[in-house]
Amino acid sequence: MNFDASTLKYDDKGLIPAVAQDHESGEVLMVAWMNAEAVARTLETGRVTYWSRSRQAFWIKGETSGHVQELIEMRVDCDRDCLLVLIRQEGPACHTNRRSCFYTAVRDGAEVEIMAPVSE
Amino acid sequence: MNFDASTLKYDDKGLIPAVAQDHESGEVLMVAWMNAEAVARTLETGRVTYWSRSRQAFWIKGETSGHVQELIEMRVDCDRDCLLVLIRQEGPACHTNRRSCFYTAVRDGAEVEIMAPVSE
Repeated sequence: MNFDASTLKYDDKGLIPAVAQDHESGEVLMVAWMNAEAVARTLETGRVTYWSRSRQAFWIKGETSGHVQELIEMRVDCDRDCLLVLIRQEGPACHTNRRSCFYTAVRDGAEVEIMAPVSE
Repeated sequence: MNFDASTLKYDDKGLIPAVAQDHESGEVLMVAWMNAEAVARTLETGRVTYWSRSRQAFWIKGETSGHVQELIEMRVDCDRDCLLVLIRQEGPACHTNRRSCFYTAVRDGAEVEIMAPVSE
């Protein structure tokens, strides 16, 4: 059936979480949020576009940093309340300049940093 | 520093999303939610435990189905408002009996099923 972004299940703020995964390495890079319009724009433009909860505005990932995300494929989960976007990530995904936002692990009960920022 | 589940950022319902990823294949299997107590129990028991929003109860994944998730490592993102759990998944993760909940893709503007249920 044709995909209609309005058929997804959004939370009470009209948002759905999107997991961004490197389409080649499988690395999970970040999780951010989309509204129905951001989902539609992402599919239409091939540029992953989120809704920034802090700025309350569309957030074309990498628009200012250059660290854009090219959409390879969008997937929907069984409950239709979460998205997985397989992407080609330009540079680091994280605003701390790390490849992934998940750079902290819990090991032996302590938080440890497992990934260094990318040097420019 | 020692990990304290209460230092994570929970939403207005006291929940944080957790992305479950197969620790070997890198496949993203599902996304579900935890509260602080579920985070603590997951770390303590090594059994991934969510908070079921529909049942409003702790949900030890696989407790009834046998499709348990053994925690390999928990990771925290830069904003401390999302978790990544690397797991060993017993059987299918999805209640539809598919390996992953993300079995629907948007291809050429249409939704297509890309994964069949596992036969028992």
